[in-house]
Amino acid sequence: MCELLAMSANVPTDIVFSFTGLVERGGVTGPHVDGWGITFYEGKGSRTFKDAAPSSQSHIAKLIKSYPIKSEVVISHIRQANRGCVALENTHPFSRELWGRYWTYAHNGQLSDYMEKFATKRFQPVGSTDSEMAFCWILEQVVQQFGDIPPVDMQPVFEFIAQLADDVRQLGVFNLIISDGDFLMCFCSNNLSYITRCAPFGKAKLIDTDVVIDFDTETTPNDVVSVIATRPLTNNEDWYIMQPSEWKLFRLGEIIAEGCATKLSPSECQL
Amino acid sequence: MCELLAMSANVPTDIVFSFTGLVERGGVTGPHVDGWGITFYEGKGSRTFKDAAPSSQSHIAKLIKSYPIKSEVVISHIRQANRGCVALENTHPFSRELWGRYWTYAHNGQLSDYMEKFATKRFQPVGSTDSEMAFCWILEQVVQQFGDIPPVDMQPVFEFIAQLADDVRQLGVFNLIISDGDFLMCFCSNNLSYITRCAPFGKAKLIDTDVVIDFDTETTPNDVVSVIATRPLTNNEDWYIMQPSEWKLFRLGEIIAEGCATKLSPSECQL
Repeated sequence: MCELLAMSANVPTDIVFSFTGLVERGGVTGPHVDGWGITFYEGKGSRTFKDAAPSSQSHIAKLIKSYPIKSEVVISHIRQANRGCVALENTHPFSRELWGRYWTYAHNGQLSDYMEKFATKRFQPVGSTDSEMAFCWILEQVVQQFGDIPPVDMQPVFEFIAQLADDVRQLGVFNLIISDGDFLMCFCSNNLSYITRCAPFGKAKLIDTDVVIDFDTETTPNDVVSVIATRPLTNNEDWYIMQPSEWKLFRLGEIIAEGCATKLSPSECQL
Repeated sequence: MCELLAMSANVPTDIVFSFTGLVERGGVTGPHVDGWGITFYEGKGSRTFKDAAPSSQSHIAKLIKSYPIKSEVVISHIRQANRGCVALENTHPFSRELWGRYWTYAHNGQLSDYMEKFATKRFQPVGSTDSEMAFCWILEQVVQQFGDIPPVDMQPVFEFIAQLADDVRQLGVFNLIISDGDFLMCFCSNNLSYITRCAPFGKAKLIDTDVVIDFDTETTPNDVVSVIATRPLTNNEDWYIMQPSEWKLFRLGEIIAEGCATKLSPSECQL
């Protein structure tokens, strides 16, 4: 499996604190040594740092920890390979352009019997992971549903993606984070949590390494920052543990829509 | 205008030496202070480092200079903005997936009256540069010409792109570097040069900063490495200065096809 990390904020915010906890899971406190990646959006632009080396040993991860890049949307992933070998082309996050926006995606989980379902034409996988195939398939469905011009209201697009994610979930485990650089959606298959931080800010202590931050000294009273992670990253804050098939749509740090996309069993979804 | 740098090699090779010369042109020996980027292919995978800060002052450029990433295909660009503001989304190289490959592209020059010509549907620009619009238009034409499945022989695709590039050149200056991670093509509008290094290797001295390298100690006798740049990067080697409308297609360090795509005036093309 893998570990996911994402952030949505209403002001450009650095994710160094959370990333510092995450990279420990890439070889120190966790077994996810098969590469890592992080995408930062800055306006409509984005940049992705990737490495097939373990995050805990990566020169580039060291740079990210020491050089705060401020961003309103971030998606990160550390990998423990199951489908697809250890290689740069199999390293998340994956990115494609659609509607003049860069869409970025990362997946935690494993799927089975997906080859036929995920056959695509316009969006083709470059690597050999189930994850990238699912991403291409999702974008292909989005274009088929909404056409070549994006709708003015993007919320239905993400609701549609949540339904698709629940469909994919029937093939295995499919915890998903996806963004167009403005909206950030997460879908829980079995393992996803988040926290929304706003004033009054307090101190937070990482679980995976001995680092404490006082957000009060790092923020202004108007800041709103949500962090999503496979497992909570701090041990003195209340993280919300998501339920299977639950999805949350964030924009500028806040949840703007949420729901339960289950087709499996309504009793699974306990919002 | 901008400066281009690219490499094609038959073994994974680091481009630290050439990149060290290039970044000086981003604020020290040249005026290209409006961002920079570099794409490294590793197998089918690729990673792009970008910064809207001047390359000569960039933390990330420092990392690239100190941490050799070995690659068979590299494309780099430093920017002096003309069309489009200084922003990450306007920073080259640009990348899109087509046919299950990441295509990477950088442009030196400036175009006029291009808006109508470059209207596209499938590949949309994210930023506001003439360069990215031309890239999207080129890929759109390639799909229209060759369809959704790539031909077994890719050479005609690049020959077609050279013809498109010459077409675009009629709107201004269009020095182009494009790659699918396997092939690397460069098209000269008015300013492009290259060198192919192979055994016996010698010493090379950068023009832009006081660095000398002895390639003989860095290589094996079978290595073949071509470097393409807007202007020669070393002052003790024979760089080939390309002619207007001339194009070269590299693979594994060597030129595998070349030609002149001019529609303007055959006398301009003096191969």
